[in-house]
Order: sequence, then C-alpha cells, then structure tokens
Amino acid sequence: MSIRVGILGATGYVGEELIEILLGHPQVRITALTASSNLEKEEPIAKLLPRLGGRISLDCFALDVERILPLVDLVFLALPHTVSQDIAVAIVEAGKKVIDLSADFRLKDPALYEKWYHTPHRHPDYLEKAVYGLTELNGAKMKGAELVANPGCYPTGAILALAPMLSAGGGSAFGGDKKLVQPHLIIIDAKSGATGAGKKPSSFLHFPEVHGNLKAYKVNAHQHSPEIEQELSELAMEEVDVVFTPHLLPTDRGILTTCYARLKEGIETSEAVDLYRSFYKKSPFVRIHPAESWPELAHVARTNFCDIGVTVDTERKMAIIISAIDNLVKGAAGQAVQNLNCMYEWDEKLGLLP
Amino acid sequence: MSIRVGILGATGYVGEELIEILLGHPQVRITALTASSNLEKEEPIAKLLPRLGGRISLDCFALDVERILPLVDLVFLALPHTVSQDIAVAIVEAGKKVIDLSADFRLKDPALYEKWYHTPHRHPDYLEKAVYGLTELNGAKMKGAELVANPGCYPTGAILALAPMLSAGGGSAFGGDKKLVQPHLIIIDAKSGATGAGKKPSSFLHFPEVHGNLKAYKVNAHQHSPEIEQELSELAMEEVDVVFTPHLLPTDRGILTTCYARLKEGIETSEAVDLYRSFYKKSPFVRIHPAESWPELAHVARTNFCDIGVTVDTERKMAIIISAIDNLVKGAAGQAVQNLNCMYEWDEKLGLLP
Amino acid sequence: MSIRVGILGATGYVGEELIEILLGHPQVRITALTASSNLEKEEPIAKLLPRLGGRISLDCFALDVERILPLVDLVFLALPHTVSQDIAVAIVEAGKKVIDLSADFRLKDPALYEKWYHTPHRHPDYLEKAVYGLTELNGAKMKGAELVANPGCYPTGAILALAPMLSAGGGSAFGGDKKLVQPHLIIIDAKSGATGAGKKPSSFLHFPEVHGNLKAYKVNAHQHSPEIEQELSELAMEEVDVVFTPHLLPTDRGILTTCYARLKEGIETSEAVDLYRSFYKKSPFVRIHPAESWPELAHVARTNFCDIGVTVDTERKMAIIISAIDNLVKGAAGQAVQNLNCMYEWDEKLGLLP
Amino acid sequence: MSIRVGILGATGYVGEELIEILLGHPQVRITALTASSNLEKEEPIAKLLPRLGGRISLDCFALDVERILPLVDLVFLALPHTVSQDIAVAIVEAGKKVIDLSADFRLKDPALYEKWYHTPHRHPDYLEKAVYGLTELNGAKMKGAELVANPGCYPTGAILALAPMLSAGGGSAFGGDKKLVQPHLIIIDAKSGATGAGKKPSSFLHFPEVHGNLKAYKVNAHQHSPEIEQELSELAMEEVDVVFTPHLLPTDRGILTTCYARLKEGIETSEAVDLYRSFYKKSPFVRIHPAESWPELAHVARTNFCDIGVTVDTERKMAIIISAIDNLVKGAAGQAVQNLNCMYEWDEKLGLLP
Repeated sequence: MSIRVGILGATGYVGEELIEILLGHPQVRITALTASSNLEKEEPIAKLLPRLGGRISLDCFALDVERILPLVDLVFLALPHTVSQDIAVAIVEAGKKVIDLSADFRLKDPALYEKWYHTPHRHPDYLEKAVYGLTELNGAKMKGAELVANPGCYPTGAILALAPMLSAGGGSAFGGDKKLVQPHLIIIDAKSGATGAGKKPSSFLHFPEVHGNLKAYKVNAHQHSPEIEQELSELAMEEVDVVFTPHLLPTDRGILTTCYARLKEGIETSEAVDLYRSFYKKSPFVRIHPAESWPELAHVARTNFCDIGVTVDTERKMAIIISAIDNLVKGAAGQAVQNLNCMYEWDEKLGLLP
Repeated sequence: MSIRVGILGATGYVGEELIEILLGHPQVRITALTASSNLEKEEPIAKLLPRLGGRISLDCFALDVERILPLVDLVFLALPHTVSQDIAVAIVEAGKKVIDLSADFRLKDPALYEKWYHTPHRHPDYLEKAVYGLTELNGAKMKGAELVANPGCYPTGAILALAPMLSAGGGSAFGGDKKLVQPHLIIIDAKSGATGAGKKPSSFLHFPEVHGNLKAYKVNAHQHSPEIEQELSELAMEEVDVVFTPHLLPTDRGILTTCYARLKEGIETSEAVDLYRSFYKKSPFVRIHPAESWPELAHVARTNFCDIGVTVDTERKMAIIISAIDNLVKGAAGQAVQNLNCMYEWDEKLGLLP
Repeated sequence: MSIRVGILGATGYVGEELIEILLGHPQVRITALTASSNLEKEEPIAKLLPRLGGRISLDCFALDVERILPLVDLVFLALPHTVSQDIAVAIVEAGKKVIDLSADFRLKDPALYEKWYHTPHRHPDYLEKAVYGLTELNGAKMKGAELVANPGCYPTGAILALAPMLSAGGGSAFGGDKKLVQPHLIIIDAKSGATGAGKKPSSFLHFPEVHGNLKAYKVNAHQHSPEIEQELSELAMEEVDVVFTPHLLPTDRGILTTCYARLKEGIETSEAVDLYRSFYKKSPFVRIHPAESWPELAHVARTNFCDIGVTVDTERKMAIIISAIDNLVKGAAGQAVQNLNCMYEWDEKLGLLP
Repeated sequence: MSIRVGILGATGYVGEELIEILLGHPQVRITALTASSNLEKEEPIAKLLPRLGGRISLDCFALDVERILPLVDLVFLALPHTVSQDIAVAIVEAGKKVIDLSADFRLKDPALYEKWYHTPHRHPDYLEKAVYGLTELNGAKMKGAELVANPGCYPTGAILALAPMLSAGGGSAFGGDKKLVQPHLIIIDAKSGATGAGKKPSSFLHFPEVHGNLKAYKVNAHQHSPEIEQELSELAMEEVDVVFTPHLLPTDRGILTTCYARLKEGIETSEAVDLYRSFYKKSPFVRIHPAESWPELAHVARTNFCDIGVTVDTERKMAIIISAIDNLVKGAAGQAVQNLNCMYEWDEKLGLLP
C-alpha cells in the first residue's frame, strides 16, 4: 500500500527537505506541490529547487486547495504561521489527513495563541483535536490522527532534553511520580542555525550580518516558550515555567540546546544517564551520550536523531542537559515523516533510516 | 591643517568602513553623514551602526546635498551606481572635492557606461576630468584632482595583478616597451566575499544560500570587465581583452584573483618576481610574495594591502598571478583614503598604516 | 543476491561517507571495518564516529588483511596514497575485488607515479589492469573488473567538465573526430572544501587558518594534474595539457571547477549546451544547466551529482565550463559505489538515488 | 616618553594581535620578539606572520630571557599556562615589568592553581603581588604594578556581565551594600570562537570538525570557573558560585556570554539598564545596550569593547545579562594594552581607540 501526499509550501527550506526525504520513502508518492511564494505559472519543482534536478519531474503550482484535494490522501503544510489555520481545517473536513508544520495547532489555549501570534484562532475546536506531534512522547496518539501539529524546532530539542527529568508518569526510572527537578525557572539556552528563520531575505539573515557573528534574539520573549511550557507542564502534571533564550548561529542547520535545572535531590551523573537511556529505550531516534560526552550539531546534521548528554553537579544539585537536533529534520520535516509513519502504523524509521 | 569630510551613503558596508578608517586619520574630521537608505528622522550614526558606539557622536540624516555643502571640504560618495552622477557633479561645481566610490565616473567612454549600467551618462564631460583612482598607477594624477573615481573592487585586484606584465611604460624591469604577455584572452578568475554585493537583503545573499556554498555569477558578463580592460589597455598602449569570472565565496570579506596570461617569451619565475618587486617598489601597500608562496585573504583582511604572488611555466609560456585584497579596504574605503592622502599630498599611508 | 564488503580506512572522511551510503544500499552488507589511524583495541565504529550511533553495530579493528579476507567479497580502500599499493594487490590476488580510493592505481605510467608520489610503484603490471573509475566514461569497463582505481576528486570535476569538448570519439554531437577546443593550455581553476585534504590535523587545516580565508596551493604543481592530463589525452587521442590551480575554500565540502578552453571554431552557447546534454544523456548523475545558469556547491552537496554549466564567447572563441561536485560523494565515496554498481551490473543509481 | 616592550610567544594568535595593536601605540616601541614554537633560526617576524609584511622589520628568535632583558622595559608573556611562571618571576626580579597573559598568576590560592593546572605553583608569593588585570574593576591598582595577571577570555566576558549585579561596594546604583542577585548557581552559558583555543593543530580544531558545528566542552569543568568565582566573590564580599558551560562556535573570534541570575527582589529592566550604565560610567570600553537590544559578536569584533545587554523578568525575579567581547582583544591582547596604559598612567584608550 502506498499513499499520495501533497506538500503546500514546497519551495521553502522545510518543503525542500520534505521532498528529499519523501523521495526515499517506500510507501509514499508525492503527487502535489504548491509554492511557498507567488508563482506566475506552473514550473517544474526542479527548476525552482535545483538540488532536485533529475530526481522528481513534478510541477509546482500556486496554492489552491480545491485543486489539491483530489490528488492526495495526506497533506504536509509547510506554510507560515496564521496561514495554515483555514487551509488545514478545509483539508481535514474534506476527509484528508494533515500534518501541519506551522504553529497554528500547537497551543491548546486559543488565548495563548492569540497572545503570541497576534491574531485570534478561527478554529479553536481543532486545537483540542490536533495531536501534538512530538513523536517520542505522543507516538501512540498518532495512530488514526486526522490533524497533527508538528512541533516547533526549538521545542523539539528542549522538550526531549527535559522530559525525563520532569516526567510525572511511568517513564521515570526512579518511580512513577518522582520528578527529579524543580519545575520553575528552568533555563533553556538554545543556539540555532539560520535555516530555522526561513527563506525570506531580511537584514537579520543577510549573509554578512550572520557570518562570523552570534546574536541572541527575542530574549525571554520567543513564541516557542509557551509551547515548551505547555508540553512540559502536561508531562509534569503541574505548571512548569522556563526561561528561554534563542541565539542565531553562523551556520545553516542545527539546534544545540543547553538546559539547566535545579535537582530536587542529589543524584549521580551515572544515574541520570541511566534514567535517560531507560526513558528513551523505545525511541530509535534518541541517542543518549555516556557521561562526560556531549552532543554536537555535526553528529546529527541531516539526520532525524536527537542526541542528548546529561551531567549533574551532585553537591550543588544542578543538572545540565544538552541536546542536538537538525532543525530541518528532527525539528521539522523528519519528525513530520516520523509522525506520518506512526499515523499509518508503519515502522517509525521508514524513509528516515535504512 | 585638517579638512572636513562628509560621507554620503554612510550606513552601507563601504560607508561604515570609511568611518572606521577616518576616525583614525589625523588630518580629517568627519562633519556630515547621510544614510544609504531611507531615514525617517535624524539618528545618531552609532544607533544605526552599533560598532561605532562610543566612538563618534555625529547624527546621520537623509541625503540632502544643499545641507551638506557648507559642512564639508570633501565628500566621499558611497552611493549606488547611477545615483552618484548628478550628486558628484553638483558637489564639484559647488567647489568641493569628491571621491566617488560608485562606478559612475570610472569608464571614460559614455557609450560603454550606457551599455553596462543601462542608463545614459548625463555628464560625459566629467568622465574625462575624473581621475581613475587606482593609487599605485595614478597616484601622481591625484594631486589637486577635483573628482576621483575610486576603482571597483574586482578591478583593483585584477589590474594590480596584471599591470607589471602589461605595462608598456617605464615600469618594466625588461625595458621600456616590452610587455611580457599576450594582451588577448587573459583569464581572470576572481572570488569575492559577500560584502562586495552590498547590504541590501536578497535571495542571492541570504545566509543559508551562501554558507557552505560557492557560485559563479555574471560569467563573462560582469560590469567590471570593461573597467579592467580600459585600464589595462591604457597601460599596455594597445587593446587588452580579458575573460572575467566572478565567484561568490562563503565569507564576508576579501577578493582573491587568479590570473592566467600567455607569455610572449619564456622567463623564469625569479625574474617575474623581481619584475613585480621593481614595478611596485614605491608602493607601500603592495607586497610581492617570494616564488612558490601565495597570497591569502587572511593576510590582507582589514588592511589596505594588495598581496601578489607570481609563477611562470617557462616551457609552456604561461604566467599565473594571484592577488589578494580586502574588498572593503583596498577595494573601496581604504583606497579612497589612500587617494585622499594623494590629493592633499599627505603621506600615502596616513590613517591606513601606523 | 547481496555481497559482503569491507572498508579499510573507515574512520577517515571518505570511509565515514562510504559507510553512510552503503547502509542504504540494498545489495550490500558491511562486514569488516578497519581504522584509518592507530587503534589500541577494537572499538564499535559508532563510538569512533558518533554520527553512526544507532545505525551500525560493527566493530572497527586495526588494519589486518589476513583477518579481513574471509569476511568480504569486495574491499574499499580508503587509505593514504602509497599505502594502498601492496594491500590492493594482496586482496586481488586472494580473489577478492578492490575499489581503491587512493591514487595508487590511477596513473598508467609508473615513472609518472614515481615523479608525483615520490616512491616507485611496486606493482606496475597492475597499473594496466586497473580500470580508471570515472563511471561516466568507463562504466562499461567496470563489469567484471577486479581492481578499480577510483578517480581523484579534482580530476572527477575537471574531466567531466571538459570531456565533451575534447572527446575524439562518438560522443561528440558534431561528429566522430571533431574536438571543439585546443588541447593545450586549458585552464582549470578549482576550489575545494577542506574535507578534500583529509582528517589529519595540520596548520593548513586549523580552523582559524581556513575560516574567512581563501588560498591557492600547489599552484601548477598538484599531483592531480597528470591524472587529468592522462584521461583527457586518452579521450582526445592526442596530448592534452592543462594548467591546474587548486584553492582551499572556507567550507567543508564540494569542488567548483571553472575551466577555460580556446575553441577551434566559433559555436553558439546553445550548441554547446546541446552537445553536453547529448554527451551525458545516459548519465543519470550528470546534470547540464541551461545557458546562463550555473552550478553551485549547494546544489550537489551530499549527492552523487555532477552539475555542469557552459558558455561560449563566440567571437573570441573561448569556452567557459563550470562543474560542481561533492568531493566526498561524486569525488570519492559516491563514485566508488557507482562503480560497484557497474561492476555487478546493478542499476547505477542503487544506494545513491532513490 | 616611550617604552621598549618585548613579546614572548609572538607567533601565536594573541602575540600577533599584540603586535598589530602595539604598532599603532604612540608610546611604545616593540624591541624584542620570541616565537611561540620552536624556531631553528632567527626569522623576520613578517616571514612567520605574513599579515605583518611591510609593517615591522624586527626578527623573532627563540625564547631566551637573558637575551631579552637588556632590550626591554616591559614584557608581554603570551606563553602557555605553567610555562610563564618562572619566566615572569625572572623578569620581574630583573627589574622589568610583566603583563602575563597566561593563567599563571590569576588565581590567588596556590591549591586552586594546582588543582586546575595540574602542577604546583613554584612562586606562591607572587600570586598576591600580581594584580588581576580586569581593567574596569582594578584599573586603579595597575599604577606602578610590576606583574599584571591578564584575565582569561571567558572570565573577562562573564565578570563584566555580572559585576554590577554582584557588587557589594559603592558601584551599585541601589546603595553601597545591596547586591541584586543570589550569589549561588549563577548560570554562565558562554560561546567562543576558535582562536580562543590557540594555534596548535588538533582534531578538536580541525576545520571540518568545527565548520557548521557547535559543541559544548568541559561542561561545568573548565579551568576558568575558579577564576570567575574568585573575582565575583571578592566583588560580592561573599562566596559566589557559578555553573559555567563553554561552547565552541564555528567562527574564529568573539565570546558571547549569556548569564542567568536570580534576583533578590523585583526590579524593572529600565532600572537594571540604569544600574549598568552607572556602574560603567567611567569605563570607555564598556557599552550598555538600551532595553530589549542585545550585543552581537560582530559589533565588537577586532575592538576592545565589551557590550552588555540586560533584561529582567520582574515577576519571576530572573535577570538575563548578555555580554560580547572579542576574545583576542578585550579577552587578551587589547586588555593587556589597556592595562599597560593604566600602569603608566596614560590615557586608557591609547593605541586602542583613536
């Protein structure tokens, strides 16, 4: 059995990554592509994205939901935030599945959505229906889902790094309800490559402004903060709050997330490593480093892996956890395909790992 | 004695470099700055260019020639091509000196200007008056000049690399009228950092499109070709033609220019090195490498030097000459200050080298 | 049917790339790995190369041909030049196939080998037996070959760029024996990422010495020159000579090669593009750009493609041809797998393109 | 009056930066240079460091204290940790001044030195005599000092960022003894360019291992931690402890330090900004950003500035402070010259800012 998929927003960085991944997916045929920006006329996607020359002969056309519907079983939306809302709902209501890579269905609280994205949510009923697609935590909910809200790139790295420390459920190696760290003032210091900010030219991403540079931005004011807090709070079964500082790295891909959390009681680093290994033992894309060894962006670049290292300062009761992902793969297109696999109950690794 | 200078187009990369250099120039006071792009109101230049914080307290205002004239003795124009024309003439006619860093007064032939810049030249009489500001070749003409046409960044690297080989005049170590290479089909393969293309955001210069990448552009069709040919032809006293290929490097600064010219007769590399040393013996900013040693961008970054290496294949009669400059310094702002020094008969190194 | 392969020199950049590719090859099982540098004891390859964590569980051991032989049907040698010689012959004589990624069997003339690699060739009889593995030109000879000499990275980019212009055989769209360009003084100006120089630390490749820098090296004196000349001469059925200048780019991967050749007679760019398309019409990994469009490293990074653009200056009879490859893929590991596919008469794209 | 200075370790990155700065210093003549690594014979420094060609004609020789002493009034030691110890003392005891850029005289406690640098301190009496050269805090002590211990690059960025928050003295805008933040578990997440790790080739700094990568290292175990804690504790007049995580950036220069400290009581961001401005009002090289504006490495590259931005989360009582410096200038050579100026009671900006 194979399914037909469409990608709306195919010419952005996430769209291109999705195409490259899906071309190697044995159960999927790409049957519709629409452009991220205005197109005067249909063009071969390989003309718009020269990397794809000789690999796919499909044309790309302007965004047109009616035209897409008969061509597809499932649609990936790689559209800007606030643009996805109506389109996602229209596709779902036409009986097709949607994996939305925008932020439009991630936050469960419409008021929070409006606060951070500066527009009311027009389909608040769908916020509950949407499954938050962090596969390692919600993989089981993906089966049969109609609308998956693929996580933000920063939340993916941060939540995977912190989940074992904050999980109130059975995941903990230390027992069911034992959270290891204080849920307040968790520090998340994240560093991202420039593709995370998209393909639209701007001074912020102008080459000479990024090369040789490093800059923090939206300090303690980034729209991914509430998403991280929502998911960690659900996991912890109590309110978690974080201090989140994103930085723009002088490279194209990858997010390294350095987290600092205060331990409730002293444990050893080796125990923490064991806890993490246990928590993720069924997760083929999470790799836990041995003690005193740390993730690097280069280890995960162009893969769907999330690598995690952890150390604890037993005396001062401080845990440092570092995760690395590729923002376009595990932070976007790869995780979307991982979710696709779970939706159809295929092997989670299909198309992502030979 | 000190002079008052204005910089029009102060907020671009060349403008900022000019300010940084001139702040260290003992004979110059910066007294007027206008912005490269639209400004709603006057702003301290240090707010627009944070590098300059704590170094200069001047405000920057919108382009307004009448306002500038009483404030200055000389103006640097760091404006886009075709915009400089009228402004330069207005300033000169008001009795002030101009160093124009655009291309508007570099080509002597108005037809050639129109062909390459797609607009007629409105002041062709000034094309002859303007001194082409490649200091090493034309330093003597700078004294008392009213309008200096500062060379393009690519021409600076290419002409300095080739001049000793093509000079028909007294510069040749081999005698007055002996050019060493064929004047036809000289290959100039140049590689430039991204600041050469300016500060305006575009897909071409979007960080993820340049990082980790290398691309040729305007192959054999770059507007700097006729400028190179004009100057080399004048030097050779016969028509020189070049094949010029620019490439965009994944870095911010510097131009490395690799030139290939066919020798008229076999010489040794050591003779070529001697010729170059002799040709530039009075040029403090040209450094000639010993045989089998080559320039690097890092050696000249943020300096006004042009480093040159040369080798010859005696048997096959082929010369390879490589030059390195910083496109914003020797290729723009630094050379402009070098020309300023020559105009006022100050030490050529003032403000550029302690 | 599947075959068992070993990789000697698995921990270098080429070795790692081979493993990543072969893990996705449906007809191959990796059954033996030896390290590039000294290993005190056997280690899981994923410990030595963290990118491979969770993907391969094989151990890596020290180089030991006797130990490898029973484990494999074919061996990839990713060893330093001069080290491969004896090992390759020992493996072939034990009845196993070898794809050698070093330079040891590329040059047909033992005197030339000794001149450039500073050691005599100890198995000159094998120089003739070895098939030069530029797949697009020699794919047919690969069937049943015992020893394939995988081309150098620079020669791959240069030869593919120039072959259609110099081919004396049936490949020419202009007829059997019509070469389009002068075979002498062809200029090859190549720019390579730093992985091409290997994994061994050195000042030349120390991060701060490469970042933001560009430098030429081994100007007209690189050991890949004779390899390029050998293959182009065979293709042209007459002696071809080239002027080859390599440059080190401030990036990790990719080679952009800009070639300049003098045309024997004037043709149009459109004719040249047609000629290239025709010459490579059966080559799935060569993509020819339309006129006035040019290859970029980013288009081919981490793929086995070679992209080529061509333009001619009809009047001055000069052709400019630019090719782009990934030095570790089409320039090394990818082409080695492409050759493997040809040796076993599998689809040329197996494991390289879905 | 001008003084004669020597630089021991002139060929490393810090040594080269010192030479470039001192060449523009009006009160200093460089009169002796010794190499960082073995030198077979004396060589012109400009041959060893091609950037310096045409700017200095001095020869560089092998390390030899006896030879240096008669040539200098003051010596900069840019030598490896543990090597400086004896040399510094020998020079001071010969009556010359020393500015030591190694770590050998920074820690006041010999036991701490031995713990972190794995060798006993052979001159513990000099630990007290040495002035810790963070100019903004200790400028007044520099006058007449014989031995200045120039701070580490990370400590410079971290201490300047945190000092106003922790100062127990009169610097506080809120009164003499009011520290604003908790002295425990202050988080310092620092990101440094690669020159900070020196010029010696290693796998850690091999270009392809750093380009496109980001990695944490020595997590909570870096030898700069005790130095930061020593200075902040002295300032706070109580024990301060920090959690310090250094990261290696894919660029050459600069340190961005993101600090997180828990406020004792809620203040507004505007108050914090005012406090910082007041604290550094006499420090020409510290620039405080307005609220919601942040330092960038590019703003301080190749300058002696330290830029600082601060924000507070009033409700949750958390302060975020970000500083940016150039590790080779304010973090090493520039600050050394700033200290030199204070030692001789010259203008602090001499040679550093026109």
